[in-house]
Order: sequence, then C-alpha cells, then structure tokens
Amino acid sequence: MMEARSPQDGRLCLDASARTEAVRRLRSIRGHVEGVLRMLEDESVYCVDVLRQIKAVDGAMKKVGNIVLRSHLHDHVVTAAVRGDAGETIDELMEILKYR
Amino acid sequence: MMEARSPQDGRLCLDASARTEAVRRLRSIRGHVEGVLRMLEDESVYCVDVLRQIKAVDGAMKKVGNIVLRSHLHDHVVTAAVRGDAGETIDELMEILKYR
Amino acid sequence: MMEARSPQDGRLCLDASARTEAVRRLRSIRGHVEGVLRMLEDESVYCVDVLRQIKAVDGAMKKVGNIVLRSHLHDHVVTAAVRGDAGETIDELMEILKYR
Amino acid sequence: MMEARSPQDGRLCLDASARTEAVRRLRSIRGHVEGVLRMLEDESVYCVDVLRQIKAVDGAMKKVGNIVLRSHLHDHVVTAAVRGDAGETIDELMEILKYR
Repeated sequence: MMEARSPQDGRLCLDASARTEAVRRLRSIRGHVEGVLRMLEDESVYCVDVLRQIKAVDGAMKKVGNIVLRSHLHDHVVTAAVRGDAGETIDELMEILKYR
Repeated sequence: MMEARSPQDGRLCLDASARTEAVRRLRSIRGHVEGVLRMLEDESVYCVDVLRQIKAVDGAMKKVGNIVLRSHLHDHVVTAAVRGDAGETIDELMEILKYR
Repeated sequence: MMEARSPQDGRLCLDASARTEAVRRLRSIRGHVEGVLRMLEDESVYCVDVLRQIKAVDGAMKKVGNIVLRSHLHDHVVTAAVRGDAGETIDELMEILKYR
Repeated sequence: MMEARSPQDGRLCLDASARTEAVRRLRSIRGHVEGVLRMLEDESVYCVDVLRQIKAVDGAMKKVGNIVLRSHLHDHVVTAAVRGDAGETIDELMEILKYR
C-alpha cells in the first residue's frame, strides 16, 4: 500500500468520523462476505442466490467508498489550490474515478 | 436469503468447481477487507489509499461474480428452454444484470 | 462490425419488436446528444450541467442495452443447448457482460 | 436544464479547450449512434453485434464525461474553499459520482 502524501504542512489524513463510519461498514461487509462463504458450504446453493449476495456486497462497498470520497473532497480536494498540490490531487482522484 | 428454485427434475445448484473457486476468492476478499480494516486503525491513513483498496475489493468481487455468472449461464440458462422455465430464468437474471 | 453467427438453421436475428423499440430509443438518444452539443455552443455552460446530461444519456443507453439483452436471452441464449452452440453463446455474452 | 451557479465573482464555466474536445467527441458519438440506427435497419441484425456497439458508445460517453470531470475538478473543485462554495460544490459532484 502506498504511503500518504505529505505536503509541507503535514500528512493528509482521513477524517476521524469518516474513518469510524468506514470501519463500522467494512465490519458489516466482512460479516456479509462470511455469510456468502457459509452459503457456499451448501452443495445445493443456487447460482442466482449467490449472485444476489455478491451484488449486495458490491452495493455496500460502493457506499463505504462514497463516504470516504465525500470526506476526501471536503478535507483535501476543495482546499488543494490553497495547499498548492492541485495537480497531484486531481491525478490521483481521476485514477480512482475513471474505473468507477 | 431466498431458496433455490426447484423445477420438476430437482434443485438447480451451483456447479462444484465454480463453488470451490468462489470460496477461494471470497476468502481472499475477506482477507482484503480485513487488511482495509487494519489500515483504518492508523489515524493518519490517507483517504486515497483507502479508496484504492476499496476499488481493488470491488474488482475482486466483480471477478467472483463473473465466475458464478458464467457457471449459471452454462448449467442453467442455456438449458432453460429444454427445462421449461425460460421466463423465470430470464427475469431473475435481468434483475441481477440490470444493476451491474 | 462483425457478422452474425449462422448456425445450421439460419441466422440469429434480433426480434422485430425489440429492434423497433431499440430504434425508437436510439433516435431519442441521438436527439439528447444533439441537445448536449447545442448546450456546449454556449461559452458559459457549467461543467456540472454537462455531466448531468452525459449521465442521463448513459442511463438511456443502458436501458436500450437491457432491451436488446433481454431479447437475446429469450430468443437465443435459453435455446442454445437445443441449438448446440452453448459454448460460443456464453463466451460472446460474457465478453459483453464483464465490462458492464 | 439547470442554470449554472453564479458565485460572487461570476458564472462558473466549462473551460474552452475541454468544451471543444467534448464537442468533437460528442459529434463522433452522434455518428456512432447513427451507425447503430443504420445497423438496426437490417432485419437480420444479430443482438450481440448491437450489444457490442452499445457498449462502445457507452465507453465513448464515459471518456467525454471524464474530460469534463477533470476540467471541473481543475477549474472549480480545487478552488471551492477559496471561492467559499465548498458545500454546494461537493454535494452536486457526489450527486453525479454516486451513480457512476
């Protein structure tokens, strides 16, 4: 995993409340993945039931991504011009958004 | 979770080898989610590093979804006309694919 | 553009009513794209207004895709085992769905 | 279509070069849509060939969206804190990105 950028005035960090919310949701996602694993222990599990659960996990991942993204926009992106690292901030954001 | 459909000739089941492969990948995804949770214990974690990991988990979920989908097409969808449940097979498949 | 496959019993064709509906929707999409082009003649157009229109066109494209997909599932995929070209049918379908 | 926001110092506008590039690409997309319409005049057109073209148009729309998005980030989002409209800028951006 890459290290966070450290502009002149210190490291850019994920906001504490967004971090707490992301942890809460990722724990629930981990539980959901474990639920799908238990489901797959059943030899007679039906493909479409598995696909439905995978889709639900996908949706939950997207929501946690949106929480982190909104926090990043608020704490780092809208202030990038002031901080002087707009170019890098845009490049790394586009790298993530273009595959969404 | 919904129960699998049971057409006249028995339950429709996820193929054993697709099931094994899905289990293998979902265990790896669970480990990846745990990695993101550990990452979030660090108060100075950077938003974009979290977003990159979330995107990687998303990609891995999509791959396991594709494995189950291909198996479902092979074992149940292409034979639906013979089995006589084409309408239901198409409806539940479109329900999943339309949100992809 | 690739030519349609021609199994023993003739060419596989898009159903006439799905074709008519696809034409109707694509004409509307073409009009929508022309609307965005007119919007872009205005030097003071706002980025987010353009992004909203692009997203609306995307959504309309997805809907026409779903109409063609459902028709393809109904007319060709659920009968592939009977026709004897299940492998090819699945491969070309996965090629399209994996990027959705 | 909504009107652009007008902060104290004037309207926010899409950058001229991004606008030119978007026009160029949308004209090509319009041509592509017209190509699919001509394709659909053929009664024997194959569903999968249509799906392939729809996917290609989708990809082209995504690319033009990325050009406008990058321009918006550069000209308006990274300067939102200075301009004093960060909240509104983030809300309208998330509205677009959450459906991507």
